Amino acid sequence: MKPNGGLKIAIVGATGVVGKEMLDVLCSRKFPIRDLVLFASLRSEGKKINFDNKFFTCQTLKPRCFEGVDIAFFDASDDVSKEWVPNAAQAGAWVVDNSEVYRLNVETPLIVPEVNRDVLLNYINNNNLKIISGPNCTVAPLVVALKPILENFGLKRVVLSTYQSVSGAGSLAMNELKSQTQAFLNKNTFTPQVFPHPIAFNCLPHIGSFKEDGYTSEEHKTVNETRKILNIMNLKMTTTSVRVPTLNCHAESVNIECEKPWEIKTLLELLSKQEGISVLDDPSHNVYPLGINVTGKNPVFVGRIRKDTSAENALNLWLVSDNLRKGAALNAIQIGEILAEKNF
Amino acid sequence: MKPNGGLKIAIVGATGVVGKEMLDVLCSRKFPIRDLVLFASLRSEGKKINFDNKFFTCQTLKPRCFEGVDIAFFDASDDVSKEWVPNAAQAGAWVVDNSEVYRLNVETPLIVPEVNRDVLLNYINNNNLKIISGPNCTVAPLVVALKPILENFGLKRVVLSTYQSVSGAGSLAMNELKSQTQAFLNKNTFTPQVFPHPIAFNCLPHIGSFKEDGYTSEEHKTVNETRKILNIMNLKMTTTSVRVPTLNCHAESVNIECEKPWEIKTLLELLSKQEGISVLDDPSHNVYPLGINVTGKNPVFVGRIRKDTSAENALNLWLVSDNLRKGAALNAIQIGEILAEKNF
Repeated sequence: MKPNGGLKIAIVGATGVVGKEMLDVLCSRKFPIRDLVLFASLRSEGKKINFDNKFFTCQTLKPRCFEGVDIAFFDASDDVSKEWVPNAAQAGAWVVDNSEVYRLNVETPLIVPEVNRDVLLNYINNNNLKIISGPNCTVAPLVVALKPILENFGLKRVVLSTYQSVSGAGSLAMNELKSQTQAFLNKNTFTPQVFPHPIAFNCLPHIGSFKEDGYTSEEHKTVNETRKILNIMNLKMTTTSVRVPTLNCHAESVNIECEKPWEIKTLLELLSKQEGISVLDDPSHNVYPLGINVTGKNPVFVGRIRKDTSAENALNLWLVSDNLRKGAALNAIQIGEILAEKNF
Repeated sequence: MKPNGGLKIAIVGATGVVGKEMLDVLCSRKFPIRDLVLFASLRSEGKKINFDNKFFTCQTLKPRCFEGVDIAFFDASDDVSKEWVPNAAQAGAWVVDNSEVYRLNVETPLIVPEVNRDVLLNYINNNNLKIISGPNCTVAPLVVALKPILENFGLKRVVLSTYQSVSGAGSLAMNELKSQTQAFLNKNTFTPQVFPHPIAFNCLPHIGSFKEDGYTSEEHKTVNETRKILNIMNLKMTTTSVRVPTLNCHAESVNIECEKPWEIKTLLELLSKQEGISVLDDPSHNVYPLGINVTGKNPVFVGRIRKDTSAENALNLWLVSDNLRKGAALNAIQIGEILAEKNF
């Protein structure tokens, strides 16, 4: 992948936790960049950001700001994506959008390259809108782990409970966890700002907003996006999304019923061979995935893989991934790499 | 309940987190106490503990130390229970033991009064060994919530993921979470002592010890004890037990498949009427059970009750209870109250 002279890349939300991670990933993966445009909110206008030993100045989004941009990566609010993603695409840029706005649109591919690269390639070859979505930060790692299971044993039902870190809610949420925790330890009072209840030393079974059926928007997203990426629109799946007092990396307790019988040894081999998966499963040496060890790492880590005899062909596994990486920035840049290779 | 002149009560493990809670519960529920004997380890020998405005001195366990004791509550190590529970019973005391040692013995009743009081009453009337077990701290609240569901709709399968606080591992574990968290915030190094890995801002999918089948001892206990208390030895159930960085109160994400169809309204009514349950379920006002609000409270709080359409007659719920109370001290004292009423 070496487009002639490199590409003009835009990042919308460059000062956010995911935006910063995107810059890291672009740099470490030596993305072929000719020019870089960084967009942020008015508050960050003029801020200088170091990328590969050069400084780039943050701008606000303005009419015609995407002219000449080859690929625009969006990780901003839903409102920003609603307004500016079509604008960027109309200006001729390929857009990789991490908001939820376009994910479930029939005409928008929802991509996790390890799982449905073919959908992206097909879209590139027959492109119209140039808008590609990346999924929710719990979904990207989950579908990578589910892929070899689906392909080899079939998926009958998935029951998920999540342990989601606060970085999924942005840098203010990370500050809130740290400052609330310090206040708690000092026996000082505090008022929650980002979360609806205290997050220090507390679990919140509430991410996003509540819907009519008692599920949260996060829980709906998790199920619907998993279905779309795996291309099983009637996949039987349920989830409980929980915010836990960890700073970064989401963990997931996944119960899976397969269509066909399977053996642990085969399953471990298949997971080990799966692109994007790293198996960490040696309980006798206390080896299993842990959030604090996964920050800044690209793979989805799986462990605690074991038969569940309460249902036919069932298993449990524990999955941890850096929600800022595979859950957001890395996944978007991986999509960008495919775009760069196939288009320019 | 007012045995003549009150009972002689012993607490083994009186200085532990559960022992202290037992004293609180005995006092607040006005347990009919004539005399109180407090046992602790050598380290705490001679320590004076205030109970109902009188001071009692901690002793170590010695031969014949249970003579004259009516009820002995044990919340100490498995080793202590192995050695001293039979000793206390042979001395004529009724023993309520919170260790795992006797829980699955065929001849030992495993009791959660709201669920299987009848088993205890039957045992009292036909007593031999005078040893009664209380269950694991995740099991006691779970079976109280499962009871009305079982009785009205039947249980087909339960898939559980837990969010267990560090107090379940004792006061040293609580200190470890606090001191590690402070060290982390100060960017100081620390070495885990109680847990196999850092617990500050981290989730550990590891409670107890690992077994051949990849499950932990905690996960085995959770399933086996639930089966015994509900008296469904072939109940289809699987669990993933996870330690989270919270100080007190366990939370549980519970997926339940029922035998029969049910309606939300009926289920809410049944749960609301269940002794020991408090329903907190008003998502539109961000009302659901939260660990930080439950410390020191007796009920098992349930919320986020919703249909799960991924399986027939299925539901999800979120349960929180004070693991030191219903999970340990309160449950034991409730058993003691029945013993006091029926025996003395």
